Amino acid sequence: MTDAKPFVALCPETLPMRLGALPVLKEKLGTNTSCWRVKEVGDGNLNLVFIVEGEQGKAIVKQALPYVRLVGESWPLPLKRSFFEYHALMRQAERDPGMVPKIFHFDADQAIIVMEFLSPHIILRRALIEGQQLPKIGRDLGLFVARTLFRGSDLAMPARKRKEDLALFSDNVELCDITENLVFSDPYFEATLNRHTSPQLDGIVAELRSDRDLKVEAQKLKHLFAAKAETLLHGDLHTGSVMVTPDETRVIDPEFAFYGPIAFDVGMMIANFWMSYFSQAGHETNGDREGMRSYLLGVVEEIWMTFRAEFSNLWRSERNGMLYQRSLFEDRGDTLGAEQALDHVLHEIWTDMLGFAGVEIHRRILGLAHNADFEAIADENVRARCETKALKLGRHLAVNRRHIHSLAEINSLAERLEKETVI
Amino acid sequence: MTDAKPFVALCPETLPMRLGALPVLKEKLGTNTSCWRVKEVGDGNLNLVFIVEGEQGKAIVKQALPYVRLVGESWPLPLKRSFFEYHALMRQAERDPGMVPKIFHFDADQAIIVMEFLSPHIILRRALIEGQQLPKIGRDLGLFVARTLFRGSDLAMPARKRKEDLALFSDNVELCDITENLVFSDPYFEATLNRHTSPQLDGIVAELRSDRDLKVEAQKLKHLFAAKAETLLHGDLHTGSVMVTPDETRVIDPEFAFYGPIAFDVGMMIANFWMSYFSQAGHETNGDREGMRSYLLGVVEEIWMTFRAEFSNLWRSERNGMLYQRSLFEDRGDTLGAEQALDHVLHEIWTDMLGFAGVEIHRRILGLAHNADFEAIADENVRARCETKALKLGRHLAVNRRHIHSLAEINSLAERLEKETVI
Repeated sequence: MTDAKPFVALCPETLPMRLGALPVLKEKLGTNTSCWRVKEVGDGNLNLVFIVEGEQGKAIVKQALPYVRLVGESWPLPLKRSFFEYHALMRQAERDPGMVPKIFHFDADQAIIVMEFLSPHIILRRALIEGQQLPKIGRDLGLFVARTLFRGSDLAMPARKRKEDLALFSDNVELCDITENLVFSDPYFEATLNRHTSPQLDGIVAELRSDRDLKVEAQKLKHLFAAKAETLLHGDLHTGSVMVTPDETRVIDPEFAFYGPIAFDVGMMIANFWMSYFSQAGHETNGDREGMRSYLLGVVEEIWMTFRAEFSNLWRSERNGMLYQRSLFEDRGDTLGAEQALDHVLHEIWTDMLGFAGVEIHRRILGLAHNADFEAIADENVRARCETKALKLGRHLAVNRRHIHSLAEINSLAERLEKETVI
Repeated sequence: MTDAKPFVALCPETLPMRLGALPVLKEKLGTNTSCWRVKEVGDGNLNLVFIVEGEQGKAIVKQALPYVRLVGESWPLPLKRSFFEYHALMRQAERDPGMVPKIFHFDADQAIIVMEFLSPHIILRRALIEGQQLPKIGRDLGLFVARTLFRGSDLAMPARKRKEDLALFSDNVELCDITENLVFSDPYFEATLNRHTSPQLDGIVAELRSDRDLKVEAQKLKHLFAAKAETLLHGDLHTGSVMVTPDETRVIDPEFAFYGPIAFDVGMMIANFWMSYFSQAGHETNGDREGMRSYLLGVVEEIWMTFRAEFSNLWRSERNGMLYQRSLFEDRGDTLGAEQALDHVLHEIWTDMLGFAGVEIHRRILGLAHNADFEAIADENVRARCETKALKLGRHLAVNRRHIHSLAEINSLAERLEKETVI
């Protein structure tokens, strides 16, 4: 970063001047930069996002800010998260081709990534709030987690390469710190950044915060998150990090990427569908959402079944890393030994995934960063009822994760909770 | 390492000339380098070790070689292991003061560490072979593992500092690779580097190599070793890495240091006492070793009980890292919540520690790097009997580790095995 120009945030007015010389942008948008139109559309918590439109086409320009956008300059956050996002995108593009946007340009000093404009894709979370049933997401997301997580681990990578990546991403300290605090700790005590739909939730919030078993589990999950450097995670894989059309699914925003447990991405993803499920009652203004609810529970099952099937395929066909070596199993004619090990590995991912799903639900309702699924429900009473049901499911998952056998069982519990009068 | 002189191995003749100008050596040994006496005493598998004696005193000069000493130049091994050893020693000296030798000088380019000459200390393994009962080692080693492993983890360190150390030590790839292969994989198939006391062991070796449950457990332990980046390990903590007098215990040679599971150091350490136990029958030329055997089982119990007690003390007094934060427990008056989490953490260390102990026993009998405990037994038949009993215990530990409740139980199994006619 020596000799670099100091960081300056882009704005719609300066963007064409600052990026107009980039050959790749001229090629995509057209050379006449004076007619480029720039719109800032970032609705996430952290960054600036611009759509740049020229005579020939559009592109996305994403720029990190040196602070948390949601909170302001009082919460500084290093620009290097852009570097981790770029490197994660490159690896994900290799590991599950076509599932992340194409990258056109990266400027580490200005923390700028220029990438493909996805159209007519919309954010999956918004589609689910609108009641859209996307037919492909269960399968696409299941494949995405299986492929990226298997292929970034010692199951597939040369050990030296994995350790180099472990070291590279271990510098993403500040974004890990956000997850460590906001997901695993803050929701379970009276942390200053917390907020919740009040006062209807006060009762259950107090109950959860004095629930010893829950707190211990949340901390054990934090321990796992911090210490189990198993694979390169997306790190923030919720429905707001997915863009969709009925035919296409794209995963974006991996700036939280680091080496953590396989189960984390899977659990966080699935949790967001359960939250969508419980939020549907708040979006029934244009007719009931019974069909949408069934659809959502189906997606949860499909993600997990696809993950499990694809992870098993890769186990059998691409297990060329240093773990569970073929020399001990298949090469000695012991195919069942490799299958036994696969069952053990999947069982652990399953158990931990449920725990991560539980705490993800809690932090989205009790912590700093809430979900539009619930936030978009204007009626506080309705919202509180939706959130209460989700909180209850989250607690059940986190504490009982070792004794739950199937998603069907959890989905059926969700359906019973949905029908209950909880507050 | 730019501008550095190329690496040249030391020898007794060149050492005084090459290191004679070091102020710290002149201070310790005396300024008249012409009368320094130098003796190469390295009996490990990897490095050169010199005792340098001058008019005023002695010092140890340890130098890494660019290959594995045990095997030769055909197995290159980077000099930077010396860098990791130096950094591990500095951290261990902080975390358990007085338990590692004092470091006088470090030269990264020449891979040289100059350190305190310990006298009249001898290698613990040799003392145990001779039948010496050291009264302090159980307590000293139990405290050492508790303090170094707790204080190098997210239980105690600031998260940023731990992640920096994780990145630093993740470059110790080649030495991790040795453990990954030689401890967890090679012993369980016909790897070229393997050897064993033959042919008396052929039967049990074949049995272990076709034992599916054992192979799966060994690979799950490898998975843990590679992925659970929990704390800075010594990484090679056997009785050959400990120097003792009846009053003092010192831990040396942490060149395998890296971030791995707490249970690894503890399990490897304890395994070496069980191996010593089963080897005693081969060293009864000057009288029986009944007392020595009881002593060794006592040491195993004392290491674990001390570890458990000290880890618990530190949990209650120094738990200032990001895991299991006080804000969720003690600060809310929930002391029992913190105790519940402690029990869970210790239970996992216990379970994994037994597994690591099991594979450590196996690799010392079936793999490349054997123990003098068994190797010094000249009579092949006696040696094979001793080794067979140890192998059986190792298998029992690795496969049944989740269902074993106490060391008393294992020690009593060891005593029954010791009395059996196994081959």
